[in-house]
Amino acid sequence: MTTLHVDLDTRSYPIYIDNKLLKNNSLLSSHIRGKRICIVSNNIVHPLYAQKLKESLIGYDIDEIILPDGEAEKSLANFDKIMSHLLANEHGRDSTLIALGGGVIGDITGFAAACYQRGIDFIQVPTTLLSQVDSSVGGKTAINHPLGKNMVGAFYQPTAVFIDIDSLKTLPEREFNAGMAEVIKYGILGDYAFFTWLEDNIKLIKSGDQTALSKMIETCCQCKADIVAEDEKEGGIRALLNLGHTFGHAIEADQGYGKWLHGEAVATGMVLAAKLAVAMNLLEVSDLRRIESLISAFDLPLESPENMGFDEYICHMRRDKKNLAGKLRFIVPTAIGKSEIRDDVTEEILQQIL
Amino acid sequence: MTTLHVDLDTRSYPIYIDNKLLKNNSLLSSHIRGKRICIVSNNIVHPLYAQKLKESLIGYDIDEIILPDGEAEKSLANFDKIMSHLLANEHGRDSTLIALGGGVIGDITGFAAACYQRGIDFIQVPTTLLSQVDSSVGGKTAINHPLGKNMVGAFYQPTAVFIDIDSLKTLPEREFNAGMAEVIKYGILGDYAFFTWLEDNIKLIKSGDQTALSKMIETCCQCKADIVAEDEKEGGIRALLNLGHTFGHAIEADQGYGKWLHGEAVATGMVLAAKLAVAMNLLEVSDLRRIESLISAFDLPLESPENMGFDEYICHMRRDKKNLAGKLRFIVPTAIGKSEIRDDVTEEILQQIL
Repeated sequence: MTTLHVDLDTRSYPIYIDNKLLKNNSLLSSHIRGKRICIVSNNIVHPLYAQKLKESLIGYDIDEIILPDGEAEKSLANFDKIMSHLLANEHGRDSTLIALGGGVIGDITGFAAACYQRGIDFIQVPTTLLSQVDSSVGGKTAINHPLGKNMVGAFYQPTAVFIDIDSLKTLPEREFNAGMAEVIKYGILGDYAFFTWLEDNIKLIKSGDQTALSKMIETCCQCKADIVAEDEKEGGIRALLNLGHTFGHAIEADQGYGKWLHGEAVATGMVLAAKLAVAMNLLEVSDLRRIESLISAFDLPLESPENMGFDEYICHMRRDKKNLAGKLRFIVPTAIGKSEIRDDVTEEILQQIL
Repeated sequence: MTTLHVDLDTRSYPIYIDNKLLKNNSLLSSHIRGKRICIVSNNIVHPLYAQKLKESLIGYDIDEIILPDGEAEKSLANFDKIMSHLLANEHGRDSTLIALGGGVIGDITGFAAACYQRGIDFIQVPTTLLSQVDSSVGGKTAINHPLGKNMVGAFYQPTAVFIDIDSLKTLPEREFNAGMAEVIKYGILGDYAFFTWLEDNIKLIKSGDQTALSKMIETCCQCKADIVAEDEKEGGIRALLNLGHTFGHAIEADQGYGKWLHGEAVATGMVLAAKLAVAMNLLEVSDLRRIESLISAFDLPLESPENMGFDEYICHMRRDKKNLAGKLRFIVPTAIGKSEIRDDVTEEILQQIL
């Protein structure tokens, strides 16, 4: 088992990475304060893993909330549903929520934990590659609003993250590939060696090799843990993790949440960010090609949706959280393994690439 | 002008207490980061003070949200309304919310600020006595749920609190008296000298004497600031501020939010807590009588609603946030100026006093 640490003073917590992790009873228990647990999951993940999880939690009083699957469920209505369930079942401040699922479940459960009685404990048990390498670590919790993704939320850290690599065995290929977009992101934004390792190990990763997956997830989580420890609330460096997300969120919002998977939108978003960097003479064309090549190796989209042009992007991007006081901000790669935040991107350059 | 400080590291902030404070342009501006402001107020307070406030904010881009008055408005529906307004008007992370009103406006605006794009700045401009001495200080923000008061919320500190004593001039007497319940609370729970000062100055306070009001509000805010600095998230001593609130919240929930004012329910709640203390041989009957006497001097209720008995209280109190793992916890006065947290209160004793 690998144990990483997110170092945030009194709110520090471990990330455990292993297979058969859901069967580790005492490790789970050590992060639960009270006697009551509410598991939040969705109708796809619940039948696969909830029983195993509950068998590791002997002696607790457990109830469950099962949401439908999909990004559209990260809604205020479901947030209200969780609050009502917790209150109707008289959960107190010492109850623990366990998020069992992907990014949607982790985000809404984390936000529910942040708000219920002004904050109770929660544990992340991410079951998709995307949530394992990205959303379960770092305490960004949120729900969506019809006018924008993740617009209502909180910075609220879990008490532990349990990444059971076994759960990737049941993950549909399209979901796995979407997760690879966030994996590739870490290489592009700050780790050249990892990017080349990914290029060299495409087959091994696709075959589900446990050692390769474990190393890959560990590298991503370590990178994220380091950045979060340095800049929890995204005052500076953490913004780099948004590489590809300004364009990506615009795609998701325009197409309707769930049509494009988040990772797919981020993949195209990273290509657009790289094209933007090339247009601004910040990145070599050869690096753009390597980025495109690695992304397409995992069957991820390189091109914008057909019906999206400059106007559609601008309209959505102006609402993006990352844009301060009306100025558009972009994370752009300046080499493979290097990136920076720019707020000097003109509409002319955007028109050129979109 | 009096300036107090809530000492919370990077989240420290000042409390300004004065008359004519809303006209102090540069002081307000010094706490606003960006160029955009959204004032949240209600239909009673807005016509009285919004214009004055806006005249102090020259050069900013200001919009407003005006909610109906009343505790029932501290709802998820209005929270959603605020989120939608902010998004539709393209507010960014550097916008500032200003809560102009009483506790309801302060609580819902604070919670909105905590959640909008995972947290933006907000300033408290409390216009009722209750919000000036209690709810505007300390960062407890929340909305109500049909199953319980303040059940959905966050600990989220304002960037400043502006207490303009002039605003009490327009406060209806019933609201002023409700605020006095929280004022008296500080005396009972930890400040014998302040309690006797209140006993000695009933007439002066009722007459609206500026010097007396200023001293009174300052004493309450200083007490609250000290407690919050020591225990922001209510792990220990901050719970003392809930004196009278376990019973009080039960009254509010049972009667329907808004029928009893919060302060009125707290007044009766404090009498019940004192009676509980007497029944447990923790408090002298003579101290109970002094507490009752000061509370009734401000025309506050001493008796439970007619239709509420043991069963009604128990049902609501079991849902109270302050009760961990099914155990009922009470703050009880052990003398005037002294209180403690007890979780050894039996149902028999409760039956006796309710």
